[in-house]
Amino acid sequence: MPLGEFDLIERYFARPTRADARIALGVGDDCALLAPSPGMQLAVSTDTLVEGRHFLPTVDARALGHKALAVNLSDLAACGAAPLAFTLAITLQRVDEAFLEGFSAGLLALADAHRIALVGGDTTGGGPLSITITVFGEVPTGQALLRSGARAGDDLWVSGATLGDARLALQALLGTVALAQGDLDQVRPAMERPQPRIALGQALRGVATAAIDVSDGLLGDLQHVLRRSGRPGAPLGATIHAEALPRSSVLARQSPALQHQCLLAGGDDYELLFTAGADRQADVLAAGRSAGTAVSRIGRIEAAPGVRVLDAQGHVIDTAWPSFDHFASA
Amino acid sequence: MPLGEFDLIERYFARPTRADARIALGVGDDCALLAPSPGMQLAVSTDTLVEGRHFLPTVDARALGHKALAVNLSDLAACGAAPLAFTLAITLQRVDEAFLEGFSAGLLALADAHRIALVGGDTTGGGPLSITITVFGEVPTGQALLRSGARAGDDLWVSGATLGDARLALQALLGTVALAQGDLDQVRPAMERPQPRIALGQALRGVATAAIDVSDGLLGDLQHVLRRSGRPGAPLGATIHAEALPRSSVLARQSPALQHQCLLAGGDDYELLFTAGADRQADVLAAGRSAGTAVSRIGRIEAAPGVRVLDAQGHVIDTAWPSFDHFASA
Repeated sequence: MPLGEFDLIERYFARPTRADARIALGVGDDCALLAPSPGMQLAVSTDTLVEGRHFLPTVDARALGHKALAVNLSDLAACGAAPLAFTLAITLQRVDEAFLEGFSAGLLALADAHRIALVGGDTTGGGPLSITITVFGEVPTGQALLRSGARAGDDLWVSGATLGDARLALQALLGTVALAQGDLDQVRPAMERPQPRIALGQALRGVATAAIDVSDGLLGDLQHVLRRSGRPGAPLGATIHAEALPRSSVLARQSPALQHQCLLAGGDDYELLFTAGADRQADVLAAGRSAGTAVSRIGRIEAAPGVRVLDAQGHVIDTAWPSFDHFASA
Repeated sequence: MPLGEFDLIERYFARPTRADARIALGVGDDCALLAPSPGMQLAVSTDTLVEGRHFLPTVDARALGHKALAVNLSDLAACGAAPLAFTLAITLQRVDEAFLEGFSAGLLALADAHRIALVGGDTTGGGPLSITITVFGEVPTGQALLRSGARAGDDLWVSGATLGDARLALQALLGTVALAQGDLDQVRPAMERPQPRIALGQALRGVATAAIDVSDGLLGDLQHVLRRSGRPGAPLGATIHAEALPRSSVLARQSPALQHQCLLAGGDDYELLFTAGADRQADVLAAGRSAGTAVSRIGRIEAAPGVRVLDAQGHVIDTAWPSFDHFASA
């Protein structure tokens, strides 16, 4: 029996709203009503995942629910915002109860972990499966981490210990890289269950000068920081030390060329790439410890434009791969 | 040459943000930053339009841009909120510059008319064409119009003069109703360029007891008001006088059965359906005049459940059509 739009949201996604003065009205009316706390700005971001483009048709429903929210929370993390609420727009080929149960379980488990409430939604028939989430977070006025704050001389940092694993797992699943099953099992969670660096983002407020989350690939995302932090028409540059890039033992056993591509142009990492003054290294390390997230100093921002990636011998590595782009393969 | 995600947003949708203290940061970073004015709550709503489900593949790009934002603004209107900002997530089969130029022109023209700024976006490859917009508006704390405030004895009202024209136009375009070209030209704007009742929604704050926008069909949307305004398990009821429903001269020339279906179960009207105390008729009429929008008193809310639609002779009209439902035809 077909389920209507109203029933779908009510049945799978709506739950009693917890008492929170900042959420005056949740799911079920024409609008939700939010009231940020005094002194807070509301951070807003939106991201879409489309079947065949952002995930494989064989994806586990629960993992997809997790990831759809995680990639959006990652944008809040990159701004240093604390999660508050989200809306969900989902387009389905048909009503598949097993899928919806798994998807909502994965989504709501991550929502609970970050105490973020679903406040609105829209479900639509007609495929392919597509999920658009808009997230709302709070950040003290004037303290959001922006892409535009990097300065020449700043250190360049990245979070996490397994940069590039998501790309390695995708290539293994697509059959373009051969991995033993045990190795695939080790790298696959990075692709399917990325952990948004929410605690780290907040800990970096007042410490980092600029931040972005790594979604399209480290070099591609770094370009956004360099362009926005430079003067119009005169972007900043950077030097990156490839051996400083944090990688898993599985990735470390691959060829140097594959390692570099996964680390620098992999995408789908949802780690934070950020800059901080060279005199703030102890503060960055303390922020990492307080958030329980590894942080690695991987290079430096420079006034001269262009990005140079150096190997352990100081030789420039060729990085002429295409950055991941939604339309590049179209 | 394929255009990347960044270029698409920058090229077609991003414009210099006008000075507005409530929009601290617009397009171009991981998040936008909003700061509602003191004493205001932020109203949030999200809606998706999918090709083949909400619009025909032959739709004019400019009209589609208008409609995608209009249906979302309509939710703000139903809450009595003043528009502030919106985000746009768009999935495209391929980069079609002519389409994007028309779509963005239609979208931004309506945005300008309501002084609402685009503050974030995501573009994705892979079809069919799908558009999800999330809108943000402001409403004084505690004054939002909700679905839950109707009381037995309240008058039932609807805005606009051309209820049902959108459905009539759709059926004509699908070939299930024969209309002369001149008649089609007259009803087609209701389908393609609905006017969100933003001014009326704000004028009804403190006057209307409940409100909803008519998107799925008047009777279906009325059920949401009756259910939310009643006690759990005991919805309110209503009587509607069919001859009081406002209709165009084109619709008035159709058969009574078609008129009733278009008026009561048409959907896609984006008029406001609202209730107000029987002692507030002068105030409702004044709100309509101040907003420049027609308002019609079409019936009454009753304590007994069920909706009775009466013809001019007081006979009950059979209304056993399916309300528009995204999954009903799946």
